[in-house]
Amino acid sequence: MVDMRIVFLGTSAAVPTSTRGLSCTVIVRGGELLIFDAGEGIQQNFIRSRLGINKKIKIFITHMHADHCLGALGLLQTLSLLGREAPVDIYGPPDFAEFVRANVKILAFGLIYEVRITSIKAEGVVVQEKDYFINCCKARHIIPAYAFCLNEYERPGKLDIKKIEKFGIPEGHLYKKLQSGEDVTYKGRRVLSVRVTGPRRPGRKVGISGDTRPTARLRNFFRDCDLLVFDSTYSHDEFQKAKERFHSTASEAAILANGAGVKKLLLTHFSARYKDTNQLVREAGTIHNNVEAAEDLKVIDIPYTKS
Amino acid sequence: MVDMRIVFLGTSAAVPTSTRGLSCTVIVRGGELLIFDAGEGIQQNFIRSRLGINKKIKIFITHMHADHCLGALGLLQTLSLLGREAPVDIYGPPDFAEFVRANVKILAFGLIYEVRITSIKAEGVVVQEKDYFINCCKARHIIPAYAFCLNEYERPGKLDIKKIEKFGIPEGHLYKKLQSGEDVTYKGRRVLSVRVTGPRRPGRKVGISGDTRPTARLRNFFRDCDLLVFDSTYSHDEFQKAKERFHSTASEAAILANGAGVKKLLLTHFSARYKDTNQLVREAGTIHNNVEAAEDLKVIDIPYTKS
Repeated sequence: MVDMRIVFLGTSAAVPTSTRGLSCTVIVRGGELLIFDAGEGIQQNFIRSRLGINKKIKIFITHMHADHCLGALGLLQTLSLLGREAPVDIYGPPDFAEFVRANVKILAFGLIYEVRITSIKAEGVVVQEKDYFINCCKARHIIPAYAFCLNEYERPGKLDIKKIEKFGIPEGHLYKKLQSGEDVTYKGRRVLSVRVTGPRRPGRKVGISGDTRPTARLRNFFRDCDLLVFDSTYSHDEFQKAKERFHSTASEAAILANGAGVKKLLLTHFSARYKDTNQLVREAGTIHNNVEAAEDLKVIDIPYTKS
Repeated sequence: MVDMRIVFLGTSAAVPTSTRGLSCTVIVRGGELLIFDAGEGIQQNFIRSRLGINKKIKIFITHMHADHCLGALGLLQTLSLLGREAPVDIYGPPDFAEFVRANVKILAFGLIYEVRITSIKAEGVVVQEKDYFINCCKARHIIPAYAFCLNEYERPGKLDIKKIEKFGIPEGHLYKKLQSGEDVTYKGRRVLSVRVTGPRRPGRKVGISGDTRPTARLRNFFRDCDLLVFDSTYSHDEFQKAKERFHSTASEAAILANGAGVKKLLLTHFSARYKDTNQLVREAGTIHNNVEAAEDLKVIDIPYTKS
């Protein structure tokens, strides 16, 4: 079992407001930080939310607009000044590597750790780890943009106490091993984990849209997400603006989330015209039954669907 | 008479803290904003302090470290997105123009107004206006850096009511003209402003050090400042660090201010190690009799010495 939560460091679209910074959503999964976008100024909320500077960090940049990537520079430098030693992995559009290179040169950045940048050139799996993978899908925005999904692999089923008692195994570390999928030997007898656990349980799936119009492709990509963070720049009153500027309305986010069977929808990337997000949540709430608005420094746990 | 005040948008050194953003000090003079440095993320405090997006704006960059110039990009873009039309003038190191050019290209910035960048290559007058000028002086930092001074020209003396009554001029718009230094004609008679006003009164002088060690050159440059904003990264306990990293201690700032006959000293650019600035103010206060610590969003009026 791995704890997972989402922390919003910035939730405003294009320009910050007095209460909202520019785009940044962090998935904290176990001891790892998965950072999606890094708008200018997010390092201050990074520090405020005490996410920790020496964790394993992966940064994903959805597209090359300044309000989504400029903050990566300051964050990288601050991590260095605060003494980080572990490398940082960044996955972003091909221009992102050039953006970092040019600025590191002009600004005489001294980074004391390694920054490994992977250019995303096509849809597919971006990161492959032992118990999860992250893939990307083309979004529809003014410039090339990608959406991301974190997909956990299935985890072992629940321990069946009745079955395990037949083997006479006492509670303790062997239980733990069997529960985590490991086979054990007890009093000379081999006990297979699958024999004493129920059916394997699904992992969690979390989607991050970045800036985009809603599309059928994204609806498929976000199929059955436990949690989906989606572009909700405008209320549907401003549908025309959303269309022109390649963003989504709260209604459109909810329609897509419904169509994809998403369990919980988190609206974010709000236009500065909205003093609060009540209108947008109400609007999406008439379509999808589990909607919440992101706000800076808000933390939301992502529990397993089946415990 | 022109109102003048100073507004701090960021007061932290190198890395932000939960309460302090990166370097930015604004002098609001009449309807004009004179912005000294633009650390990453300052646009949010710019919006919070309601400085106004359509005022005349000049930005001065002391040196090319990211925590002093990265925020210019976001500020320029936000001003554009919020509909600014007037040009913005920027004065900075020669690399600054290249920094803006490279990022505008990579990030596909669309600026709807003109950005005029002047490269500072030597000490001297940088800006020359009708009633003030701004000059710069070499600072001593790790990389080339400049300090700046705003110098108001003398203003006309106070209206001498006894003298003016001799001419029989009634109170009203003619008083105002004479007070502002203009000569007038009343009932066919020419009245010279200098004949009915007292001795000319000095303008104000405000200094901004940027990042620097204290130097004799800066002490001369800041001679008789009404208000001086000076690098106070460390307490004097950390003198060795200040020396190595080319910053100043609170004591050094106070000694320089004393030596220059500065009326009020404002400490800023605090290392993140200081939770609050009491220690630094106390330390400088034992040397200079009018010391205050800057803090984010703090506003300080700059009155004339002689009303």
